[in-house]
Amino acid sequence: MADSSHDLEIDSDRLYETIEKLASYGAFDDPITGARGVNRLALTDTDAQARRQVCHWFDEAGLETIIDAVGNMYGVRAGSEPGMAPVVSGSHIDTVPRGGAFDGALGILAPLEVVRSLNDRDLATRRPVIVGVFTNEEGTRFNCDMLGSAVAAGRIDLDTALGFKDRDGITVGEELIRTGFAGEINVSAMRPHAYVECHIEQGPILGREGLDIGVVTGVQAIFWHDVKITGRAAHAGTTPVEYRRDPGVAASRINLKLRELTEESRFGGALRATMGGCELSPGAYNVVPSQARASIDVRNPSDDVMDDVEGELITFYKWVEDKENVKIEWERVVRTRPIDFDPGVQEIISSAAGALGLGNREMLSGAGHDAQEWASICKTGMIFIPGEHDGVSHSPREHSTEAQCANGANVLLRTLVELADEA
Amino acid sequence: MADSSHDLEIDSDRLYETIEKLASYGAFDDPITGARGVNRLALTDTDAQARRQVCHWFDEAGLETIIDAVGNMYGVRAGSEPGMAPVVSGSHIDTVPRGGAFDGALGILAPLEVVRSLNDRDLATRRPVIVGVFTNEEGTRFNCDMLGSAVAAGRIDLDTALGFKDRDGITVGEELIRTGFAGEINVSAMRPHAYVECHIEQGPILGREGLDIGVVTGVQAIFWHDVKITGRAAHAGTTPVEYRRDPGVAASRINLKLRELTEESRFGGALRATMGGCELSPGAYNVVPSQARASIDVRNPSDDVMDDVEGELITFYKWVEDKENVKIEWERVVRTRPIDFDPGVQEIISSAAGALGLGNREMLSGAGHDAQEWASICKTGMIFIPGEHDGVSHSPREHSTEAQCANGANVLLRTLVELADEA
Repeated sequence: MADSSHDLEIDSDRLYETIEKLASYGAFDDPITGARGVNRLALTDTDAQARRQVCHWFDEAGLETIIDAVGNMYGVRAGSEPGMAPVVSGSHIDTVPRGGAFDGALGILAPLEVVRSLNDRDLATRRPVIVGVFTNEEGTRFNCDMLGSAVAAGRIDLDTALGFKDRDGITVGEELIRTGFAGEINVSAMRPHAYVECHIEQGPILGREGLDIGVVTGVQAIFWHDVKITGRAAHAGTTPVEYRRDPGVAASRINLKLRELTEESRFGGALRATMGGCELSPGAYNVVPSQARASIDVRNPSDDVMDDVEGELITFYKWVEDKENVKIEWERVVRTRPIDFDPGVQEIISSAAGALGLGNREMLSGAGHDAQEWASICKTGMIFIPGEHDGVSHSPREHSTEAQCANGANVLLRTLVELADEA
Repeated sequence: MADSSHDLEIDSDRLYETIEKLASYGAFDDPITGARGVNRLALTDTDAQARRQVCHWFDEAGLETIIDAVGNMYGVRAGSEPGMAPVVSGSHIDTVPRGGAFDGALGILAPLEVVRSLNDRDLATRRPVIVGVFTNEEGTRFNCDMLGSAVAAGRIDLDTALGFKDRDGITVGEELIRTGFAGEINVSAMRPHAYVECHIEQGPILGREGLDIGVVTGVQAIFWHDVKITGRAAHAGTTPVEYRRDPGVAASRINLKLRELTEESRFGGALRATMGGCELSPGAYNVVPSQARASIDVRNPSDDVMDDVEGELITFYKWVEDKENVKIEWERVVRTRPIDFDPGVQEIISSAAGALGLGNREMLSGAGHDAQEWASICKTGMIFIPGEHDGVSHSPREHSTEAQCANGANVLLRTLVELADEA
């Protein structure tokens, strides 16, 4: 089997057509950039349509579809030896609001293309090869990213997951039932031999260095703060500064503090800190706002740095409370630890890239991925491919070429076949 | 007539009950402060209900109701001598989002109470006394404050006014027709002998000095900027600072610049600068925002200072564009000049307050008012009363006591009677 895969390649046209087809679910034309993006939040009608399309592709490829109680979907290609743990390769099809066509989608459609290519040649693997689709990876609708994978890997229990609410108070559990993706399979039934995920880099490094493949060594740590700042509404035309309790000014101070932290030399340019959302209410010209809601995302490869930065931020919140006479309430809605991927899997990926003549390098993932959850229960690795426009992602401008996607899928093919033939 | 009014007082219970009744239209209990506020944006169903209540009170008081083509409503009490220009006293019943019960409302219900008191004693005035209700004073639904007064006074033409749109694209004209307040009277039909408005101070001065009445000398100048900042969506976890074009950081810099300007000693504490609204989109934790929309309100008594500040702000926008690699588009949606009220009217108000034994002082208005529009076509003045909680306004906590409101209405009574008996 391993021998016969050496000249095996995926069908890049078929892969890219499949990516384009999936991108039609939730497609929109962005008036700002002119690019065509994808808006497909977790467990919306659009997400459900895309899920049904993926199930249809699973059927066409002869995969058995199983769905677990948190809505994770698995397309199973049986192995030749009974009773062996499978190799899983997957990702997510939910997007951020007004995102792109590749983030997540490639990680499902590349292994689907791998399976199709194995089918074309009628090639068997000892272990099952499974394509996984995991619920609510982005965490922008329900504020818990990697939700489906986290439940499958046991970090979050099912009841907690089903109870997460979106802004309108609708729960994951309600939406799973409504969309028809509340499956019956136990969420912890899947215990793979190995997990591999193919994903866009979402950053500029591969592109700038002219490389084709990133061999991912791990994932940096993340925390999210949901920040509510309460001040006092007042007339904008009459209220002197000393009488103001302006939560908008407080939020602005926090946003610039985040920027300053990222520029501090002690972090060596490796700290990411972002205020992605901020909204003032009531939001009228002539009213000093009474409340600000802000969302904060901070990332670094070092857990110690993350603890330090969070401590500094909390101290800064207190300083702003005093300075602006406001009340700042914050909640840590996400905190993930840095993840190291399996060195053996990294070596397989690196060798596969080398055998295909593809330039590659080791790199850390700046983004969180489903793979980091699976890493807690099986050996795990990730394959990155570059993107155009300095690898911009979470944007309609997110774009990888057919050749870039094919390179990732071909490395994935060799990696999955090697892992699926392991004893 | 002037003699018989010397011992005439309004009915403070009746006035306050009427204020409380009007406040029931759009009433809400604010979860933050525990106060009961009013949410009654211009030409909404709630505003229309409140307008119908006012028309009912006009009928009860024997006033003839006339409505002009921009929805201004006038309750006319005829004078004893035919053909004389009327004295108008009015204000608005629209509120900012989640505002209070006194801003505007007092300016309609105080002269209504004056008319009721004149009726009780069967007292005539030479000139008609008219209670005015003006459309969209706040300008928070349709971005043009003092809209109805500005049309009546000829600063804005009717077609322009009817075409103003709210955020959903609904026009003033459409809402006037829908709510039944598109009247047939020509908007420029009303040419008063004098205009007087009774209003809450919306600031802390009278309260701090223990005074009852502010004799308003004029209104400071205002400009509003609608600011749209376009950056580029990107992944919050992967995108280094040097690749970011973050409109949220740009908006934060502008907000803190506004704060710095207000604190500069050259303005002597008299500059007001506020970012009342700001919203980032798409507004997700893990996405560097692509766009920020912000609303800015700047005020000062000096036109020269206003021009200087606007120039500095525009220069700062350019600096931020370069610094953050974003595009800043701004529109001046409001620019009013400083207004000086009529010295003779000020003297009448001051004498009336003195005769009633009420402590009073001259003061400038920090807020814009309908009176500033009428000042361009007739002699005009304003009466301020203090408010609790340092005069906080545009807030559910906005509150003036029954005695404070009665003081304002009694000064207004004497002022209107004196003006309405002028030759």
